[in-house]
Amino acid sequence: MAIYFHWTGSSIDLWQSVLQEMGIESPFYTSDQTFDPAEIEYAIAWAPPAGQLSRFDNLRYVFSVGAGVTHITEDPTFNPEIPVVRLQDDMLVQDMSGHILHWALHFHRHYHRYAQYQRQKKWLRHGYPENSERRIAILGLGQTGLDACVRLRDLGFSVTGWSQSPKTLDGVTCLHGDAALQTVVSGADILVNLLPLTPKTTDLLNKAVFDKMPAGGFVINCSRGASITDEDLIAALDSGHLEAAALDVFRTEPLPEDSPYWMRPDVHVTPHAAAPTNEKSAARFILGNIRKVLDGGIPAPIVDLSRGY
Amino acid sequence: MAIYFHWTGSSIDLWQSVLQEMGIESPFYTSDQTFDPAEIEYAIAWAPPAGQLSRFDNLRYVFSVGAGVTHITEDPTFNPEIPVVRLQDDMLVQDMSGHILHWALHFHRHYHRYAQYQRQKKWLRHGYPENSERRIAILGLGQTGLDACVRLRDLGFSVTGWSQSPKTLDGVTCLHGDAALQTVVSGADILVNLLPLTPKTTDLLNKAVFDKMPAGGFVINCSRGASITDEDLIAALDSGHLEAAALDVFRTEPLPEDSPYWMRPDVHVTPHAAAPTNEKSAARFILGNIRKVLDGGIPAPIVDLSRGY
Ligand SMILES: NC(=O)c1ccc[n+]([C@@H]2O[C@H](COP(=O)([O-])OP(=O)(O)OC[C@H]3O[C@@H](n4cnc5c(N)ncnc54)[C@H](OP(=O)(O)O)[C@@H]3O)[C@@H](O)[C@H]2O)c1
Ligand SMILES: NC(=O)c1ccc[n+]([C@@H]2O[C@H](COP(=O)([O-])OP(=O)(O)OC[C@H]3O[C@@H](n4cnc5c(N)ncnc54)[C@H](OP(=O)(O)O)[C@@H]3O)[C@@H](O)[C@H]2O)c1
Repeated sequence: MAIYFHWTGSSIDLWQSVLQEMGIESPFYTSDQTFDPAEIEYAIAWAPPAGQLSRFDNLRYVFSVGAGVTHITEDPTFNPEIPVVRLQDDMLVQDMSGHILHWALHFHRHYHRYAQYQRQKKWLRHGYPENSERRIAILGLGQTGLDACVRLRDLGFSVTGWSQSPKTLDGVTCLHGDAALQTVVSGADILVNLLPLTPKTTDLLNKAVFDKMPAGGFVINCSRGASITDEDLIAALDSGHLEAAALDVFRTEPLPEDSPYWMRPDVHVTPHAAAPTNEKSAARFILGNIRKVLDGGIPAPIVDLSRGY
Repeated sequence: MAIYFHWTGSSIDLWQSVLQEMGIESPFYTSDQTFDPAEIEYAIAWAPPAGQLSRFDNLRYVFSVGAGVTHITEDPTFNPEIPVVRLQDDMLVQDMSGHILHWALHFHRHYHRYAQYQRQKKWLRHGYPENSERRIAILGLGQTGLDACVRLRDLGFSVTGWSQSPKTLDGVTCLHGDAALQTVVSGADILVNLLPLTPKTTDLLNKAVFDKMPAGGFVINCSRGASITDEDLIAALDSGHLEAAALDVFRTEPLPEDSPYWMRPDVHVTPHAAAPTNEKSAARFILGNIRKVLDGGIPAPIVDLSRGY
């Protein structure tokens, strides 16, 4: 049995040392090495070329090097019976919450306006509601959404979370299911998207949602670009109904040169930097999972491909 | 006995309703009203004109409408034997911590760089240390400094605090006294100033301090402008030794038109907006203190004018 590894830009030395730390002696092949495809039982991958994984007839598990998995599952040759394990990582959660806190505070306290005033040498202060009166909605209450809710709540904000299945969280209003989305967005001064990309969440944030948001609202997207209908967001900003957006993820990445987002002062573009995979903790999580399998256990969390996450 | 009130831009109705809430029936005079100066026993003030308060021979206490008090005490005619009570307020503390979290995250995660890249349509991501490896120093461990330390610590940052007298705080390195300042600043990737303005803290952040900071460091000033020697900060930025600064307070406010800070991309100017006094909670705090005196008690916290805060 052997491990196949595909992640451009990673440091093999680091993985070798974690393999050793975990006492895993199986061969560890990268795509440029020669090996017998039949040997491969585990694949660790970020965006492997289409057709790559389907060559491995004895593949037992695929481990995603990120929290999302569509970079593996959207390959039509990928066998959906092979369990895909996604990344769970405290570092990723900490980073994502830091990103969300930053942009929530940025908009709540008008730092985006002050940056523009500075260029005009304008000394003008704006009032803002108390934290407890600023309503922030988090779409998605998975590993990242739950932590973001707790941290925003701890700063005193009024927080609502939305998920597929029911949840409870002290001091946070938790709603779930399609019917509740209207309620969630109509009370969201700041709307944060942390939903995985699935057929149901593709283009979920569209004109209907933006129209329902309170005037002067803000959008923070840090999960997947295709959850937003770009033309609808741009129209909501153009009309002045929404004040600004912070976008970390896009339908096409890197963001194409001709995207209107680049040049808008009311859109803050970051280069998919909200929660980059921390290589060391990812290696520990994934190889720890392989260690578990070698010891007769089952890795976790396995993606439910029927719901897409 | 009567209360004198001087705060331009405040809402008298709000104060009247809190007076009622507290059951205070004493006359409440603003500077444009006619009254007998001998009646005044309590003054509530923000930056009263020089000579104003010294007209009140029976003045017992002055209440500052902000956390700082030099706007009252630097008037040479002010009688230093009259106790000055400064503002303590959970809202102010929450706002100040929000401001500091925002700028600490902003610099830690390179959002200042991404804002510049956006204008060049540049998609480029930078690495950053784990929160636990980012060292943040807070100068001043009073009402605002302590809370800022706790909140940064809770996000996983490596936090050091500095005060005059010894302090202890779980998970935060607390140092005190003049001799420790070198140690504090030489380990500060991000240096936050929350010191009150006193003779000892005037120009405390100067070339010697900036030189000792690690290369690539950041400065966040949110207490008083005169604690920074502006030429020295500008030289440290010009040389590239410091990467950027977020300044909310200035030697002269509003920041004069000819200040070099306005046009620097590495300086982020905000208009003394870190923790504006929340009028409602300030009214409750100050009138609650007057209530206490009327009931025979002593208001708090009284400023120790010998040390200046
Ligand atoms: N920008 C970046 O740097 C970055 C970094 C890491 C991850 N991400 C993105 O962030 C996403 C979220 O990550 P995660 O690890 O927090 O995901 P997760 O743990 O799988 O949580 C997903 C959450 O979304 C909810 N959800 C899914 N479909 C829904 C629907 N149709 N209606 C309502 N709720 C729905 C789920 O509800 P239930 O709880 O009821 O199942 C769950 O609470 C990832 O998919 C990834 O694309 C981005
Ligand atoms: N930008 C804004 O919007 C805004 C809003 C509110 C306040 N402020 C400013 O923020 C300042 C701090 O407010 P605060 O309420 O937190 O003050 P505070 O409660 O009086 O605390 C002051 C802290 O500074 C320390 N300190 C004073 N002189 C020192 C010295 N020479 N060396 C070392 N430590 C020294 C004190 O040490 P000890 O604990 O040992 O006494 C104390 O910990 C205020 O003075 C005000 O000017 C700005």
